[in-house]
Amino acid sequence: MSEFQSKIKTIEWCKTKQGGYSIMVDQTKIPYAFEKVEIKTLDSMFDAIKTMIVRGAPAIGIAGAHGCALFALELLSKIVPIEDLWQDITPLNINENQRKEFFEELEKGFNYLNSSRPTAVNLSWAIGEQKKIVENSRTLDLKEVCANLINNAIRLENEDIEINKKIGDYGAAVVPKGAGILTHCNAGALATVGYGTALGVVRSAFAKDNTIQVYADETRPRGQGAKITTFELVKDNIPVTLITDGMCSYFMRNKMIDIVVVGADRIAANGDTANKIGTSTVAIAAKYYNIPFYVAAPKSTIDLSIESGNDIIIELRDEEEVTMVNGKRICAEGVKIINPSFDVTDNSLIAGIITEDGIFKPEELKYKLKVSA
Amino acid sequence: MSEFQSKIKTIEWCKTKQGGYSIMVDQTKIPYAFEKVEIKTLDSMFDAIKTMIVRGAPAIGIAGAHGCALFALELLSKIVPIEDLWQDITPLNINENQRKEFFEELEKGFNYLNSSRPTAVNLSWAIGEQKKIVENSRTLDLKEVCANLINNAIRLENEDIEINKKIGDYGAAVVPKGAGILTHCNAGALATVGYGTALGVVRSAFAKDNTIQVYADETRPRGQGAKITTFELVKDNIPVTLITDGMCSYFMRNKMIDIVVVGADRIAANGDTANKIGTSTVAIAAKYYNIPFYVAAPKSTIDLSIESGNDIIIELRDEEEVTMVNGKRICAEGVKIINPSFDVTDNSLIAGIITEDGIFKPEELKYKLKVSA
Repeated sequence: MSEFQSKIKTIEWCKTKQGGYSIMVDQTKIPYAFEKVEIKTLDSMFDAIKTMIVRGAPAIGIAGAHGCALFALELLSKIVPIEDLWQDITPLNINENQRKEFFEELEKGFNYLNSSRPTAVNLSWAIGEQKKIVENSRTLDLKEVCANLINNAIRLENEDIEINKKIGDYGAAVVPKGAGILTHCNAGALATVGYGTALGVVRSAFAKDNTIQVYADETRPRGQGAKITTFELVKDNIPVTLITDGMCSYFMRNKMIDIVVVGADRIAANGDTANKIGTSTVAIAAKYYNIPFYVAAPKSTIDLSIESGNDIIIELRDEEEVTMVNGKRICAEGVKIINPSFDVTDNSLIAGIITEDGIFKPEELKYKLKVSA
Repeated sequence: MSEFQSKIKTIEWCKTKQGGYSIMVDQTKIPYAFEKVEIKTLDSMFDAIKTMIVRGAPAIGIAGAHGCALFALELLSKIVPIEDLWQDITPLNINENQRKEFFEELEKGFNYLNSSRPTAVNLSWAIGEQKKIVENSRTLDLKEVCANLINNAIRLENEDIEINKKIGDYGAAVVPKGAGILTHCNAGALATVGYGTALGVVRSAFAKDNTIQVYADETRPRGQGAKITTFELVKDNIPVTLITDGMCSYFMRNKMIDIVVVGADRIAANGDTANKIGTSTVAIAAKYYNIPFYVAAPKSTIDLSIESGNDIIIELRDEEEVTMVNGKRICAEGVKIINPSFDVTDNSLIAGIITEDGIFKPEELKYKLKVSA
């Protein structure tokens, strides 16, 4: 397991006597400020995901798990004041209707939260993990249901970092010595709980060979590459060159890029991969220049229920993400905008999908990968 | 010849009794303001080209021709006050040394101006056209030399629009009905004297078929697509959708792009084409999706002295173009920047080069195109 330590923890459950709440880095403020916000309700978690205070498929997953636990606490506190969730073993004195209503409301809340962003499958995967906890807790006292949801969220949180370190170590093995590594968007510590997926590969590679160089695509419209990837790599003293999204061909033609590693928001059964808009443009350029293009993602990003990328729902976001930069309009009035937040990279462009179980060819996913249903 | 009238004249010689000066649209202010600036000296023309007050290969060419005429006027006015360049036929009373010095200084000034930007060949082409005038004027009175340089600049200016209309009409013939046309950067009226090259094709196509749609790449780092292309197309009521540079693959995959047309800064003898950074990334994506990719450029952009794109000098520009947007930094401190202003699109990616003499395959340039030496 890699020894490289990332200094960032993106999202974390803060346990209190009353259960606790979620603390996350406010990613809309990076690189200008590194601030954490406390999220204490389902609605504020919904907004945090929607407005991208928390972003990155694996981090959104954990935010979803936290949101489920928060909502259970909200519902419980409407029935009874929570004084000590962990020590108070007095059974709740409520009737069957109240229990039924609790579970019904809980499910509605889970589904609502799941609608905050459509493309990253990790959100519905993590909410699904919480639904399993609920299923197995139907006969328990509601305080225990809450405690179980919290503990499960913390388990997923801890697992995420362990998974990323495994991804990093598998990926580092395919990074050539002294490589120029191109990445798009941010699949780093700040897209996960910590360490990162694509940037996990970078971190593990850098721990072995500090002559590697990262090229970070700006990633318009929201600029996660410019803002977030440069921020976290500079923080870890990993050399990073910022390039604009159109520049990849120039750097590839000039033999400065040896490998591309990106994250993923949803991987279909055939290996087609939805990731941040612009990813497939890079993948096509990499193919043209015979540069291997890898996707680094936990198994929770793989959606075997979806046959191909054509069936992945692509979120369309606000016009202003394209037309406004730093509070000022960058284009003429009267222009039309279509702002897809993701694109689909065809499986034929992908050299391998780096998971916590190893590296798979896109066509192997269906047959070789053990994904829990 | 196309009937479509563009409303913009980018650069124009303003004739006065004393000879005149150059008036140009200040393109650094678009789309926020449409202002014209007067350029009256060689040094201010050098700065206008360098700082991209005037940009776009053909427009830079005309700016170069203007700059040569301005410098001749500057040198002449050091010898004698110019009262009426056009009517005053009194021979200048100067000795041979003064004449020699005039021509020597003139040549130095021309060469200095030619160094303002390295990649677009149109600058050295236009300065070369002015050098020919000088060669043919060695025995003339210096006032006549100035008048000839001015008149030649005006001729090139007028020819540019005529050439662009021919390019537009040849190009329109290959635009499918109702096409989505992707363009990168701005090769429009504002990159030329008027009408445009790539956007000349758009204008001519739109005159025949108002169901076409333009997709304009933002074109980071300087955003000429967002700022200038949207501005001039909206002004002409041609429907335009602004997309970020990484989005081309998404729109191509979703069959919204039928053809790509871009401009050029220098075309080598084998058809390899230097154009705004990001162009070759789009060309590679177009090839992948089997979408024809055309270059629209006057013959003055073709440099038969350069065998292939590998020999084209690519200008590297300031870091701040990448790191700062609208006056605010977009990335972490400590990041490295390499900012190539152009890239080279391989001839194998180019379906045709649209010139005022017709459309040529890249490999035909050397054999079929008549380019004046």
